[in-house]
Amino acid sequence: VPPSESRIERAVRAALDAKTKPRGSLGRLEDLAVRLAVIRGTPQPGRQRAAVVLAAADHGVAARGVSAYPQEVTRQMLANFAAGGAAICVLARLAGADLHVFDLGVLSPLGDPAVRELRAGAGTADLAEGAAMTSEQAAAGIAAGREVVAELAGDGVGIVALGEMGIGSTTSASALAAALLPAEPEATCGRGTGLDEAGLARKVETVRRALTVNAVEGAEPLATLAALGGFEIAFLAGAALEAAERSVVVLLDGFITGAAALAAERISPGARNAMVAAHVSPEPGHRLILEALGLEPLLDLGLRLGEGSGAALALPLLHAALAVLEEMATFDSAGVTDAGR
Amino acid sequence: VPPSESRIERAVRAALDAKTKPRGSLGRLEDLAVRLAVIRGTPQPGRQRAAVVLAAADHGVAARGVSAYPQEVTRQMLANFAAGGAAICVLARLAGADLHVFDLGVLSPLGDPAVRELRAGAGTADLAEGAAMTSEQAAAGIAAGREVVAELAGDGVGIVALGEMGIGSTTSASALAAALLPAEPEATCGRGTGLDEAGLARKVETVRRALTVNAVEGAEPLATLAALGGFEIAFLAGAALEAAERSVVVLLDGFITGAAALAAERISPGARNAMVAAHVSPEPGHRLILEALGLEPLLDLGLRLGEGSGAALALPLLHAALAVLEEMATFDSAGVTDAGR
Repeated sequence: VPPSESRIERAVRAALDAKTKPRGSLGRLEDLAVRLAVIRGTPQPGRQRAAVVLAAADHGVAARGVSAYPQEVTRQMLANFAAGGAAICVLARLAGADLHVFDLGVLSPLGDPAVRELRAGAGTADLAEGAAMTSEQAAAGIAAGREVVAELAGDGVGIVALGEMGIGSTTSASALAAALLPAEPEATCGRGTGLDEAGLARKVETVRRALTVNAVEGAEPLATLAALGGFEIAFLAGAALEAAERSVVVLLDGFITGAAALAAERISPGARNAMVAAHVSPEPGHRLILEALGLEPLLDLGLRLGEGSGAALALPLLHAALAVLEEMATFDSAGVTDAGR
Repeated sequence: VPPSESRIERAVRAALDAKTKPRGSLGRLEDLAVRLAVIRGTPQPGRQRAAVVLAAADHGVAARGVSAYPQEVTRQMLANFAAGGAAICVLARLAGADLHVFDLGVLSPLGDPAVRELRAGAGTADLAEGAAMTSEQAAAGIAAGREVVAELAGDGVGIVALGEMGIGSTTSASALAAALLPAEPEATCGRGTGLDEAGLARKVETVRRALTVNAVEGAEPLATLAALGGFEIAFLAGAALEAAERSVVVLLDGFITGAAALAAERISPGARNAMVAAHVSPEPGHRLILEALGLEPLLDLGLRLGEGSGAALALPLLHAALAVLEEMATFDSAGVTDAGR
């Protein structure tokens, strides 16, 4: 029988209180240590191997001019991930995390061995015209995410940081958030990679239309994910679902991984218990999603790149929380007077 | 002739804008890269070697019951630093920073080769009775801090993270902040390592008395530092002054290193331009000091341990900012369409 959550929390709090520091003086780093231990299901999680799972796909809705960048950039960035030149390549290296890049459905495959192709199609359909994915495509995306995390867990990975890339993806995430929170499109749409006023208005209108056309009100979460999501979002939702079942920590990046996490939570309530929010972005829908998931972000640095870059930047804090729990001396072992006892 | 600050800033912004990411999408990490480059005096600072400078000393004011911990803990923690069991030992290791521990005047010396003894005395005098330090002691502390940073700079260290330890030190820092901001003692006194209501009231009263007894209103900053500071605070102020003169980045930890930084800025206006604030602590005076120094903290995690622990936790963000600037591919080199051009 694995130890109960409250028992793990008590044991970790006691261990932290015995360390040579005033009680609670490491603030949220101590709460983070507790959460990581509870997720891993042990009061002594030790150091954890981390991996960044980066999923790319194209979105049919991009044709509507809802992004500041042309759709070809998705595939170009996939090549950049493969070549090691993107921000996430630099940041994952620095954080000591393995980077795994997946093509879930970029318009045309790259054929680069550094990218694992788990394609559910050649870009989604336009969500403002009908369902972005068939239910089979959504299910395939989820299954692929589950399989990847199952493999990583089998390889001893304890922290999976989620990242994504896909021109048009914030529109899909905004639509998903509007449907699943629920919230008005105005509250979930932001400027993404750098939309102007007219572009933002187009995005809001596109999301509003998508919600009507797909009749998502009262629909099952899985159907909503298929209607409004993207291949990479379904994949990341599957990754989060599998991680929660395998006691693997899910480190969320920004708005789009947040939308995938929200879908996972709606599909399987409680999935959020395995999640940690790396940061909060300027995308207005991100904060709403984090509140709905009950997650407090570790960083607030105005990050809005995606790719898992914010997750990689927060990763050292997770390692630090675990190292403090594992490696610090106790008042007893160090011979320091404990006034708090 | 070294390049001007505005020229370095323009060059770094242009370099960041050419990287494969939407303009400004790494938010404050991009501002941080600019700041680090400006401090180092070059648009291409590259990766930087970092060191934690941790200074310990005792405070005569501790006898007044202004701390939750007995004074003996300063020396015990010094031994813990030497043995590698304290939080900062774990966190500096994790961040890849060398840890340098200094005894500036703990009650009795430890005699451990892992601690460098630059003692200005055996604890300061009680600042509520008169000056905590003689002007010679304060000058010796500053000179020692300058010498250490000069050595580190000579060894190629580009980032110096400041940390401190000393029972009673928040009372000294609160008095210094009240005098140098200036502000009321109520606004600069907090619970330190865990004071109760009565203890906090004693601390406020002690600071009020110290400000009167030492007649600091209108005094020179150096005289105020001697009257209200501590050996380790004078040392850290000296470290900050030398770093600013040598284009070395000063990474501040919490409230006490903040008070030392404020003293440095008052002694030599402009010293703050070499500073980066790692975090903001729950000590009420810390936010006031950061505002006075024009610094926005990178982290806000409720940290109140000191030792340089918050600085060590923020260090990966500095390394990340520099790595992004140094290592990311450009739109041109990666063949990615730049919509922002």
